[in-house]
Amino acid sequence: MTQTAGHMSSEMQQCIQECLTCHSVCLTTVQYCLQMGGRHAEARHITTLLDCAEICQTSANFMLRGSELHTRTCGVCAEICERCAQDCDQFGDDAQMRACAEECRRCADSCRRMAGMAA
Amino acid sequence: MTQTAGHMSSEMQQCIQECLTCHSVCLTTVQYCLQMGGRHAEARHITTLLDCAEICQTSANFMLRGSELHTRTCGVCAEICERCAQDCDQFGDDAQMRACAEECRRCADSCRRMAGMAA
Amino acid sequence: MTQTAGHMSSEMQQCIQECLTCHSVCLTTVQYCLQMGGRHAEARHITTLLDCAEICQTSANFMLRGSELHTRTCGVCAEICERCAQDCDQFGDDAQMRACAEECRRCADSCRRMAGMAA
Amino acid sequence: MTQTAGHMSSEMQQCIQECLTCHSVCLTTVQYCLQMGGRHAEARHITTLLDCAEICQTSANFMLRGSELHTRTCGVCAEICERCAQDCDQFGDDAQMRACAEECRRCADSCRRMAGMAA
Repeated sequence: MTQTAGHMSSEMQQCIQECLTCHSVCLTTVQYCLQMGGRHAEARHITTLLDCAEICQTSANFMLRGSELHTRTCGVCAEICERCAQDCDQFGDDAQMRACAEECRRCADSCRRMAGMAA
Repeated sequence: MTQTAGHMSSEMQQCIQECLTCHSVCLTTVQYCLQMGGRHAEARHITTLLDCAEICQTSANFMLRGSELHTRTCGVCAEICERCAQDCDQFGDDAQMRACAEECRRCADSCRRMAGMAA
Repeated sequence: MTQTAGHMSSEMQQCIQECLTCHSVCLTTVQYCLQMGGRHAEARHITTLLDCAEICQTSANFMLRGSELHTRTCGVCAEICERCAQDCDQFGDDAQMRACAEECRRCADSCRRMAGMAA
Repeated sequence: MTQTAGHMSSEMQQCIQECLTCHSVCLTTVQYCLQMGGRHAEARHITTLLDCAEICQTSANFMLRGSELHTRTCGVCAEICERCAQDCDQFGDDAQMRACAEECRRCADSCRRMAGMAA
């Protein structure tokens, strides 16, 4: 994206990338959870993963549009990523869920910085 | 939506409807503004309309998924709708812009109630 | 939407409305299915409902933007709605699934007309 | 995405990546065009860029969900990317527009392969 987004701070470029990656990981994890069934497929858990995927997409789009309001969407994205990470933590040593939790936390950190929020 | 969303409060059903209407009006207004050109088509104004359309869609989707986190997306949606309404106010007696501002304010009011925020 | 979309044919306005309704019904049905569990919550079925919800949203947005390319998105939307309806048919006399199948077929019909496809 | 999408073919992983990149480039190009004004900001051109960004996002999401129906969305995505590339070609030696056209063609090629379409 260097050429086409040269005016963006590297911090914003990184945040966009985290949001897109977190979006992808959450959608992939939804499929994994539905195939696992049982506790993995509980409505509340699938909903949180879908919530996280969607707000990451929205948050990335605000930054890609160069919107001044991106601090607001990054703020709510950080909160929802953090919640999703906590949800994924409950599955202990399941590798997919741990990878998802880690990506959610990386994205939450990055969004929190963009939103100018204290950790 | 009565049959398929019978468990929802009527306040939430109304908020979903406002978000979907506001999303539609903002996207239609983008076209109007691009065709008008000049001040209507300034980057900052088009971006705000696209921001408002997208956060309304996201906010509606959180409610349709029955997500507990809808208060967060409704909160940020209220803020962005309010900003978009102020932007549209600047065009004085342009009927399309006034209709858009009015819908943004109705949606902001409804989202604010869902978010439990004071006006 | 009368005031803000006065230039649209009434057939297109109706198709936008069907797409928005079908999107809402599919998302609501995802929640219902996840809460039912069992066959309702099979990965393939949930995926089809999410697919249908998303392409309906995309198809509505193309029309709202006044895009010439809406015939293409309406075409693929009609196919996916039809597939989703068939999936929902398998649940016999389950009222929610039947309502979802009916809305998917209404939306498929409307999109097929917009796409200029034969039934 | 290696860990979380290990079951995907490398061709699909590449197509997802092209769709996400093309989506990002198109949204960034919308901002560029709105700031340039004049012919860059014509309604039809901005609409095509927004169309392309949205169908790329939708197409990526179908693949990320593991949907069988991704061949359909990839097919229409290839068509719309190709159209967007042709639109961008009209701006001659403008570096941003050329970069956008190139990414749209890369994405169209990749989507065409996923859709099993002949070039």
